Amino acid sequence: MDYYSKEISKLIESLSSLPGIGPKSAQRLAFHILNMPKEDVKYIADSLVSARDNVHYCKVCCTLTDQDICPICSNPKRNHKQIMVVEDTRDLAAYEKTGKYDGTYHVLHGAISPMQGIGPSEIRLKELMVRLQSEDVEEVIIATNSSLEGETTAMYISKMVKPSGIKVTRIASGVPVGGDIENIDEVTLLRAFEGRVDL
Amino acid sequence: MDYYSKEISKLIESLSSLPGIGPKSAQRLAFHILNMPKEDVKYIADSLVSARDNVHYCKVCCTLTDQDICPICSNPKRNHKQIMVVEDTRDLAAYEKTGKYDGTYHVLHGAISPMQGIGPSEIRLKELMVRLQSEDVEEVIIATNSSLEGETTAMYISKMVKPSGIKVTRIASGVPVGGDIENIDEVTLLRAFEGRVDL
Repeated sequence: MDYYSKEISKLIESLSSLPGIGPKSAQRLAFHILNMPKEDVKYIADSLVSARDNVHYCKVCCTLTDQDICPICSNPKRNHKQIMVVEDTRDLAAYEKTGKYDGTYHVLHGAISPMQGIGPSEIRLKELMVRLQSEDVEEVIIATNSSLEGETTAMYISKMVKPSGIKVTRIASGVPVGGDIENIDEVTLLRAFEGRVDL
Repeated sequence: MDYYSKEISKLIESLSSLPGIGPKSAQRLAFHILNMPKEDVKYIADSLVSARDNVHYCKVCCTLTDQDICPICSNPKRNHKQIMVVEDTRDLAAYEKTGKYDGTYHVLHGAISPMQGIGPSEIRLKELMVRLQSEDVEEVIIATNSSLEGETTAMYISKMVKPSGIKVTRIASGVPVGGDIENIDEVTLLRAFEGRVDL
């Protein structure tokens, strides 16, 4: 990077520290930024710092928010008797995009992964248990990913919650809508078979 | 983007204004940034603003630099009688990486493109002519891209410089090293044939 002056090298280096941005993209981005109006660059820089400074976990569901309690948890129109447990805020957003779920959420910020040394205490499970004790909850819907970690977490939550008598469900696993049977892996096909429903 | 709080949406939106960063990558980047240590986020934000504020064109060769005159132009060990004309600073860096060129550069910041409405006055050609008049230059090596715009620009510079008696050369066009003849387009193969050299 000696080909560029210090300020440019520093910019390229700091951009390439971000995930999914390799040296080539960092270079392209850097030169784009150097050609942007100063106020636009300032806007981006400010939005980075300000988001990092002001965004924290919702006191109820642990999603990322800039308020004390997120808009979903503070909305009286949502069904507070249903809690959907997701791995992260992006998963919450994905379900919100469906526009059909009116319950609340709980964001774990991860999944149990013995391989990566992430145990139950590393994710927001304690907060979920506190909610189940203090709130009047009827159903916990587990919407962790359909990966090894997601399934392990689902099993763990299920075992943890069941003694309290609260209903525990897991989102269905099967052939995605529009999916071509011939291109779908065996495990999914088997799941879809096992989970077949009456027509 | 109503699924995210204002600060997060603003961050995602400002990241997706950058080239090559779609909504999905912007989301991934945003959540990565929200999980980074505050000081690291500050460092990136500062490097953006500081680079944009302090980087400008070198007074001699027009490359992007944070000094008045870039390290290449102010280096007495470089051969100031050779000027390689490139389209942008990244092209200069590409030639510097070869480690074998010891002349100087001139960065045009673009190429003549009637299609995009970029004429000779939109790129740093005037600055090149001023240099050719004031400096003792023996050779102008045109290293613009081998595209329609790059070739047009090369022709234009050649016509502009030749009357002054200064030698004008163009970097060779042909089969790239390691290139497979069968996979190379006809125009390149024809160029390679026309530009054949004695062995």
